Parts: sequence; C-alpha cells; structure tokens
Amino acid sequence: MSSKQLNNLSGLCIHTITTKPWNIEEAAKNYSANGVKGITVWRDALTGRNLKKTGDMLHKHNLSVVSLCRGGFFPGKEYSRRKAAIDDNRRAIEEAFELGTNLIVLVCGADPSQSLEDSRKQIFEGISTIIPEAKAAGVKLAIEPLHPMYADSRSAINTMAQANDLAETLNSPWVGVAVDVYHVWWDPNLEKEIVRCGNNKSLLAFHVCDWKTPTADMLNDRGLMGEGCIPIRKIRSWVEASGFNGFNEVEIFSAEYWKTDQSVFLKNIITAYKTYV
Amino acid sequence: MSSKQLNNLSGLCIHTITTKPWNIEEAAKNYSANGVKGITVWRDALTGRNLKKTGDMLHKHNLSVVSLCRGGFFPGKEYSRRKAAIDDNRRAIEEAFELGTNLIVLVCGADPSQSLEDSRKQIFEGISTIIPEAKAAGVKLAIEPLHPMYADSRSAINTMAQANDLAETLNSPWVGVAVDVYHVWWDPNLEKEIVRCGNNKSLLAFHVCDWKTPTADMLNDRGLMGEGCIPIRKIRSWVEASGFNGFNEVEIFSAEYWKTDQSVFLKNIITAYKTYV
Repeated sequence: MSSKQLNNLSGLCIHTITTKPWNIEEAAKNYSANGVKGITVWRDALTGRNLKKTGDMLHKHNLSVVSLCRGGFFPGKEYSRRKAAIDDNRRAIEEAFELGTNLIVLVCGADPSQSLEDSRKQIFEGISTIIPEAKAAGVKLAIEPLHPMYADSRSAINTMAQANDLAETLNSPWVGVAVDVYHVWWDPNLEKEIVRCGNNKSLLAFHVCDWKTPTADMLNDRGLMGEGCIPIRKIRSWVEASGFNGFNEVEIFSAEYWKTDQSVFLKNIITAYKTYV
Repeated sequence: MSSKQLNNLSGLCIHTITTKPWNIEEAAKNYSANGVKGITVWRDALTGRNLKKTGDMLHKHNLSVVSLCRGGFFPGKEYSRRKAAIDDNRRAIEEAFELGTNLIVLVCGADPSQSLEDSRKQIFEGISTIIPEAKAAGVKLAIEPLHPMYADSRSAINTMAQANDLAETLNSPWVGVAVDVYHVWWDPNLEKEIVRCGNNKSLLAFHVCDWKTPTADMLNDRGLMGEGCIPIRKIRSWVEASGFNGFNEVEIFSAEYWKTDQSVFLKNIITAYKTYV
C-alpha cells in the first residue's frame, strides 16, 4: 500500500466554493499563479456568465475543469419537485458541456417528509432518467455518498456501499462514484468499498478536507487538511491502489476561512496539500 | 411486522438528562405523578447523593431504574487516560449496583489523535477488562453505537453492525447492545442488524427521540418524537420483533427544551410517546 507524499501540485484541484469570497475569475487567476492545475466549478460561481467563455478563460489559465458541482437533489414527496429536479439536472449537464468538463458531482438529495427508502427509489429514477442526456453530452455523473448527518435532507445515499450498489444497479458507463473523505472517513468498510468501486472502474473523483474536533457547524466548519482526524493519506493510498489517477480536489466549506484573506488561505491550502494529502 | 400504537405508559422510561433542569428528586416525583414507569439515571444527577438511598427513593416512586448512563470512553492515546477510564467504569458498575439497576449504557469513546482502529482495539480491551466486575455486580453492559458524526471524539463504534461484531467477539452474557434511533436511523442495514442482535439475545435497551431538519447543534438539538424524520414506530416494531420487551426510553438532549417549563415538556413527551413511538 503506497502512501507517498505529494511533492508537486500536478494533482491539485481546488473547488471554487473553497475560496468562496473570490469570483471565478479571481479564483482562476490566483489558483493558476500558485501552480494549481485543476478547478472544480460550483454552479453559483457561474451566475450571469457565458459558460463557453468562462470555460475558455479557465483553460487559458491552464486549469483542467475537473467537475461541475453539483447536480442531484432528486427526491421529493411531490411530483412537481422531482420534475423540477430532473429539469435542473438536465441544465447542469448542458452547463458542464458548455463549460468543458466531463463530470458532474451528484448530491443525491433526501426529503425528510418521506422515508429514506422512497428517497432512494427516486434517486435511482432521477439518475436513470438523465443518463441519455449525460451520454449525449459526454458528461459522467458521480454519485457522492454524503455523511449520515445529512441523511434527513441532503442525501439518502450515505455510505460507499450504498453508492456502489446504486452505481452497479444503474449499470451505465456514465455513472460512477465520488469519494469525499469528510463523508466516509468513519466507515469501517471504507477500504473494502473503495476496492470494489475501483474494480468496477467507477471511482470518478476524490475530495479532501479534514474533520475538526469540535466541529462547530454541521455544514460550514470543515478543516484544512491536517487540522483534524481524517487519515487522508491512507485513504488516498486506497483510492490510488484502486486505479484512480485523477485529481485530489480540495473542497472546504468553512465560514471561518471564508472570513480570512483568501491569498493567505490558498498558500496554506498548498502547504497542507503537500504535507497531509 | 407489528407497529401498533402505545395506548398506555407501562413501557415509558425517561432519562434524567431529558429533563435536565430538574434534580433527580423532582424528576422522580413528576415522572411518577404522570404515570411514567421507568427512569434512566445519568451520573451527573447523582452528585453528592447516597446512591442506595437515591435508589430507594426511586423505587418508592414505583420507578424501575432501567439503566445508568453512562460508562465507556475507553480509548486514549496515553495509557494514563485508558487506566483512568477503566477505573471510572469500575466506579460506574459500583454505582449501578448501589442504585439498584442491572444495566449500564456504554458510550465507547474515541480519541481523534489516534486511528479509529486503535480506538476500537482499546474499546474491546476496556470492556473485556471490566466484565468480571460487571458479572460480580450483576450489571450488564450495553454498547451503544453512536452516530458517525461523533466518530472523532465520542465513539468509534458507529453502526449496529460494529456493535454486534464487538458484542459477538466479547462473547459474554454481560455484554449487549443499546439501540438509539437518533444514532442509527439512517443505516440501510438497520433492520438486518436489529434482527441479528435479537438472535444473539443481545438487545438490552431502546432509546427514542427524533431528528430535526435543520439540526442546529450536533449535541443538544434533538427533537421530541414526531418532530422529525425518524421512523420511530417502524424501528420499534423491528426491535420488538427481535424479542426485546423492555422499556422505550426517551432520551432528548435539547438546549431549547431545557429552557422551557419542564412540567409542560413532560406532558408533551407523554403525548408524543403515545402518538409517535
């Protein structure tokens, strides 16, 4: 099992949400100037922009557009909500195509007014419905299992086992799984399920950050790599052993870091990346 | 699969922590006056009291002392911390014996400065060490799997499968499992693992509350039954089908409810118990 240190930034991707105070033009310029090679674009960063031109701008900064975040949120007790979700996911596929990325991360969704079983069925149906559009656009869909603390309203898919089961049942080359250490680090079956995902050639993305003790907020208090208890390098070694050779994507929601100077934060991300990822 | 409504309070137990503003004497008096039949005692409620006399007081109120909360917190990177935990668990066993209950709930613990695997080994060792004292005192130990959002510092045992594995490995009639809906409701393997626990005759306790959307605080924002998305009655039906016929214990940590009139809260608990448990 390899767990070697990262000596360069060739695998480093940063999510626009990580440096939320920057607009996408500032993020691209600063990432690129600091040697970052990949960017994952959150859809809020695209508001009011021409997507084709924005994609060109990113490529001019030598940034690979690793993925678009995020599609999903398929479940809803009411049909109208499910229909709206399908429409929104179709728009996301168009946006990904125009932006020039071949991957969308899916936060699958959940509706606390119905059972998890119903939400899971609707997630299956939602993804099934959009596979033809994904295929036509050449865009893959990555099911991201979310931490069980989000099972009420954000995702009824909460473990790698569930994500693998779902991807296997959908059985499409356009559907795979995204591994985010924040969501899955606690799982005693993690290594086994990463191996299974790799055997299926389904591991499409790898996100990193850290889990702080204490965590002050369930959404926006993620830690910089090295600040918490997640064995990031060990998990990366499992992901790489499974055959994945894509980017290591830094995705940190942090009200605390968003308040700080983002240029300093970016340098700290790079140091943390080399030291702890 | 039965999921019948509870028409009386014969199975209702309340944890002293649920009505934290009351001292144990007030809790006992009020629970009893309102028809509650069981009480689970948190150790903080016993501060400065003679345990034998407190147990007698509870029995005089016709309250079954269902369990003592809580033992556990076995892991620690330093030996001194593990040793202190063992000593504390031995005291808990003595306290349970003096109080007149035959069950201690274990929140197993975790240390974010070491791996989950190390914490799990130390949990196994810790419980093994105290089994002789538990047996001598006639006190059973219930491993409570905690929600994965507590895996950093409160418990490295986060699913019913892990709790069952641990109990099976310990293989003692003095060790079983406590099911708390708050911690396990999201788990797609829940029914299967409750059946397994029942087949082992290991299901020792059943705790209820609800999961609110949104949850404002990771520790102290639990909901009253019916306020959230947990399918409590369905889970109770699984627990009862597994052979469990003990109390349904209401355990609600809520900064919000602790601020309110506890007599009103108690009446609301009883209504919610009849309607949603």
